[in-house]
Order: sequence, then structure tokens, then C-alpha cells
Amino acid sequence: MNALPPSTAFAPLQNDTFLRACKRQATAHTPVWLMRQAGRYLPEYCATRAKAGSFMGLATNTDFATEVTLQPLERYPLDAAILFSDILTVPDAMGLGLSFALGEGPRFATAVRDEAEVAKLEVPDMDKLRYVFDAVTSIRKALNGRVPLIGFSGSPWTLACYMVEGKGSDDYRLVKTMLYQRPDLMHRMLAVNADAVAAYLNAQIDAGAQAVMVFDSWGGVLADGAFQACSLAYTARVLAQLKRTGPDGAVVPRIVFTKGGGLWLQDMAALDCEVLGLDWTVNLGHARRTVGGTENGSGKALQGNLDPNVLFAQPEQIAAEAVKVLDSFGKPHQGSGTGPTHIFNLGHGISQYTPPDNVSALVEAVHSHSKTLRA
Amino acid sequence: MNALPPSTAFAPLQNDTFLRACKRQATAHTPVWLMRQAGRYLPEYCATRAKAGSFMGLATNTDFATEVTLQPLERYPLDAAILFSDILTVPDAMGLGLSFALGEGPRFATAVRDEAEVAKLEVPDMDKLRYVFDAVTSIRKALNGRVPLIGFSGSPWTLACYMVEGKGSDDYRLVKTMLYQRPDLMHRMLAVNADAVAAYLNAQIDAGAQAVMVFDSWGGVLADGAFQACSLAYTARVLAQLKRTGPDGAVVPRIVFTKGGGLWLQDMAALDCEVLGLDWTVNLGHARRTVGGTENGSGKALQGNLDPNVLFAQPEQIAAEAVKVLDSFGKPHQGSGTGPTHIFNLGHGISQYTPPDNVSALVEAVHSHSKTLRA
Repeated sequence: MNALPPSTAFAPLQNDTFLRACKRQATAHTPVWLMRQAGRYLPEYCATRAKAGSFMGLATNTDFATEVTLQPLERYPLDAAILFSDILTVPDAMGLGLSFALGEGPRFATAVRDEAEVAKLEVPDMDKLRYVFDAVTSIRKALNGRVPLIGFSGSPWTLACYMVEGKGSDDYRLVKTMLYQRPDLMHRMLAVNADAVAAYLNAQIDAGAQAVMVFDSWGGVLADGAFQACSLAYTARVLAQLKRTGPDGAVVPRIVFTKGGGLWLQDMAALDCEVLGLDWTVNLGHARRTVGGTENGSGKALQGNLDPNVLFAQPEQIAAEAVKVLDSFGKPHQGSGTGPTHIFNLGHGISQYTPPDNVSALVEAVHSHSKTLRA
Repeated sequence: MNALPPSTAFAPLQNDTFLRACKRQATAHTPVWLMRQAGRYLPEYCATRAKAGSFMGLATNTDFATEVTLQPLERYPLDAAILFSDILTVPDAMGLGLSFALGEGPRFATAVRDEAEVAKLEVPDMDKLRYVFDAVTSIRKALNGRVPLIGFSGSPWTLACYMVEGKGSDDYRLVKTMLYQRPDLMHRMLAVNADAVAAYLNAQIDAGAQAVMVFDSWGGVLADGAFQACSLAYTARVLAQLKRTGPDGAVVPRIVFTKGGGLWLQDMAALDCEVLGLDWTVNLGHARRTVGGTENGSGKALQGNLDPNVLFAQPEQIAAEAVKVLDSFGKPHQGSGTGPTHIFNLGHGISQYTPPDNVSALVEAVHSHSKTLRA
């Protein structure tokens, strides 16, 4: 790998609201960004994707990836940008052949289902993921300090789901068969995945990512007990290996989002990360009491958790639902020191069918009501 | 409707383990039955279905429905039978045209998506569902007192999901759009559904069902707040209208199962029902402490919650996982009076790919270990 750009190559940050909230520090408003904010609901995204020819054509081209990452920021006063990429780039670099048929989810050319296939797995050469790190640096430059850039990966368990199933699944039968029938294979795969994800996120940090997020999209399909053993333990293994600061010396907050993980919040409180992402099934007030911590005590910042389907309602209804989410968290920490903080987001990725103007209504409502909440 | 058969038409019950556990009374072993126990994993079921020509051909033919309901009891010493039918028969009777393409989920010919379509909805004439009540009576006779018979329906919210979407969904975008954009329409639909489900379950009780279960299969996709307003409130409306005893004067326990509802256990404790069904994400020990009640106090019996994918492991692994589930609940109530009890089940319907012999291993393990647990 080339030497990384010195931190002085990046412009100073103008809006640190998101990073402060990640660190449980006071902010003047509740920061907001949206999972999958650069995506198909934006006509300008569809235009760029059409030029790129395919999802991977888009993700592997630095200029295109930079362009689409910045598109939502041109429309909405969002408080963070997130790298345009996919949660499954790591197994692709392991040689499994990731692709996206139009209108469908991800698919691997090769699935990993038996002892021989698991034995072959190893942490890929990070050079195969250079297109991601190049995109991070390019986006960071293009952002020019406007908002911070979030890097990300799928969690070890979520990668394993796709690696075994070969694609999305209704029942996760194949990956769970391996889990229950050959736990030795499952744990080997998860260990390799964890070490690969850690190396991958560290390289994103070196390239300029100012926060990193682990998407445990399928942690919630596991049984109690299996979640702790197969998802949580390997997310912890990732976190234990992550750099705590970027090349500029700034702390890099770590976000863990387990979709459907609301029942395990107390287990997740023990994770060595700054932020927990929550889906819409979780009551934010309850989550705050459970893991949000106290003024000047330890705890997790909370990120979430509007149902993305709210964005199909009328603007005034969207605003009312955003207010409900903000109010369920309550007044965030104010003043000096640290305390409970909230980062507004959806509880899952934004739908491709979302009318773009409705996102304006949401972001406006979050910014304005969250200021009122602090008054 | 014809006069109902006098209760004396049915043979006395030989195995009341399931009904006793529903009522939080002591049993010598933990009763076990499996959601979808009469189904495609059984070759004899597939043979009958082939004769019937279609799923609805099977469900609407009294002889076929009776035959397949009893098939799993011939193979396994299960402690309850469940009516062979579908959760969506009520909207079918409303005129929406239910069908099942081979290898696919349910589908309605007509979806309910606008004000005019919602306005047309009404509680259907129960005579349109006579095939279900005839099947209940026929099955009850054929069971000849061997084990009790459970009747069931989808919950008002779950029916609404399919009625609006027209079929299963990944994101429930259409039904949630109605929920957030036209709550007036959604609540009217849910009210009609609730009254229809109540009439339907009461007619099943009159026909001989000895317990009834409400399948809230999609309650777990709702946001906190929306769950209470759109799922729980209308399940409560069903329960408030249900008969408490059958024609023979015996108490008819009511089971509510919300898939993905573990976060709302405390809300569900207020439901006027005897049993709560749980999926595999819930820790049974935690659920027992939350809603299981105390010795001679009130509380819910708990039903669940093995991951159906465990049945793809080896018999000894299946037994070990069954033991974990039993042990997580702990020692059930013993002696006289009432106390915490457990009904063993899967956390969701059994997979069509399950090797039938593995079910034998499961049932045997539940019966033998649950006796040990009481020693």
C-alpha cells in the first residue's frame, strides 16, 4: 500500500455535530444522516449508476463513488456522509465474486458450505480492496471538511450469512444448519471474517474515515445464545483490533448496528464501541435508560430509529413522527462533559421508492425540533 | 349455521398435558407441539396435497383436512393437534380470493389499498367459513380424545398486512404507507378484522376447538408505538369478544404469538389471554421473570421457542438444543394450584425441508428431559 496522505491533506471539519454526538458531547441540534442516503431514491444516483453500468462498477470507480456519496449532501443539510460501498466487499475480496442483478440483492458466484471451502478462507490481501480506500480518500477530499465521513463493513456474522447462503434468505437455513451442525466450521469462518473486517476498517481509517460502522444486518435472526456466540463475540473481536484514532490523531468513533438486536441491548452495552444503532422496534427512552449512561458517566450514544416507511407519508406526518422519535429519546446532554446523546437516523436503509422531497421534510423537522428540545 | 354437536359427541380427553400447561397447572412432562406440524416436510402430507390439487383444495375438504391434521400424531407423540388451515381464511371469506402457487406463499387476487376498498370491508358471513368449522368438528371426532385440538386465526394486523400488500413482503411498504398516511383507513380495517377474527374463533370453539391461537406473524415489523396501536390493541379487541368456554363447559385457553414481539412482553402481559408464544430470539428465563407470574399468582404460560433450523442438525445436537430451551425456562410449576409453565414449541413454523426423523429426536428429548427437570 502507498503511504497514506498526511492529515494536513484534508480540510478542517466545519460541522462536528455528528462526531461530538458519537462521543456523547453536547451539540446545538441532533445530528442526522440516513442509512443508504446515497441511493436509488435519488434520480441523480440512478443517472450515475447507469453510466457505471452496474453496482460494482459504481463502487469500484473512485470518481463515481465520490460523486454519489456527495449527492445527498447537495440536497439535504445532513450531518454526516457515508462511504458509498457495500457491506459485502470483504468476502468479494476473498474471491467469492459479488454481484448485484438489477432490482435484486447481492449475490455471490461462490458459496461457502463445506469443510474444504471454509478451510480455504483467509483474510484477503487488503490491496484487493484498494478501490475502497481510494474512494475514502477521494470522498474525504471532496467533502472538504463539510461533514465527517463514515466508513463501514458488514459484521462477521452478516458476512457469513451471505457467504453460506450465497444471497439473501428468508430463513437462513443453510447458514444456521452449519451453525448447529458444524459449529467448528462456523466459528472458523467468523474468526477469519472478524480479522478481515478489522483490517478493512483500519485501512479505511488510515485512508480518512472519521467514524466506522459495523452493520450487523442479520444478527437479529439468531436465537438467544447463538446471537451472543456468533454475532456479538465476533463484533467484539473486530472492535478489539480497531485503531482508536485516525492519522490526524482524532478519535474515530465506532458504531455497531444490529438490526433486530433490541432484545440484547444489555449484552451490547459491554461492546467496546461508542455508538449503538437501533431499529424502529426499540423504544429510545428505554434504550437510553438501559445503555445511554448518565451525565459524565460511561454509556453509549444512540443512533436511530425512524421506520423508513414513515417517509411515504405526507410531510407534516413525517415531521410528527420525527418529533415522536426525538421526544422518545428526550432532552440530550447539554453543557460540558459527556452524557446521553442521540444521532437521528432511520432504523434501516432508506427505501428506493422514497420521494426525495420527503427527506427534506424529515431533515428539517429533526434539526428544528431538536433545537426546541434543548431550549 | 346448523346446531352444534353436543359435547357428548366427543370422546373424553386422554392427554390433557397441553391444556393443563396452558392454564399454568402442573404436568408430568412439558407438552410439545410444533407450529405447522402438519405440513410439507411429511411425505404423507405431500401425497394428500397432491390428491387435493391445491392448498385451498386441501384446506376446504373436510376429509383431507382431517387426514393431514392427524398425520404428525401418527409419527410423533405430540401433546396437541392443530387444525389444518391457513391464517388468511378470514380475508378470503371477505372476498379477496386467497390462493397458494406451488412453492410460494399466500396471495390475494384483490388487494385493499384505497378508501373505497376499505369502506367495502365487513365481517364476512361465517357460513363462508363453514368448511373450517366442519373440519374442526371432523378432526375433533377423529382425534377421539387423544390430544386436544387447537383452532387459530391470523391477527387483525397480520391479516391487514396481506390484505394491503396482496402477498408477503420484504418491507411492508404498502401497508405501512397506509398506516402512516391514512391511519383512519388502517384503523377501520383493523376493527373489521378484529371483529371478524373474534366471530371466526368463537365459531371454531363452538365446533370443538379446545384452545385457540392468534398468529400475529407480522406484529414484529411494526415500530414501537405502532405495534401497540395497530397490533396489540386489535388483538385485545379479539380477545375481549372470545368465548371463555366450549360447548362442553371446559375452559378454552387463548394463545397469542407475536413473531418478533419479544421487546413488548411487558405490554403483552396485559392481554386477556392464558399463553404467550415466543420466538427464538427471546430468553425463556427472562420471559418467565417478566410475564410468567408466580406460584398461585397470575401470569402467562409460555410457549416456544426453538429455532426451527436446529432440526437440520444431528439428533444428538437437536436434543442438546432442546435441553437448552427447557433449561432456560427452568423447573416448571409442580403440585397443586397454578404457577409458571412452559409449552415446548418451535419459535416459528417447521421448515418444509426438515428430515422427519429429526422431529422424533426432538419430541423424545423434550419429553425425557422435561421429566428429569421435574425430578
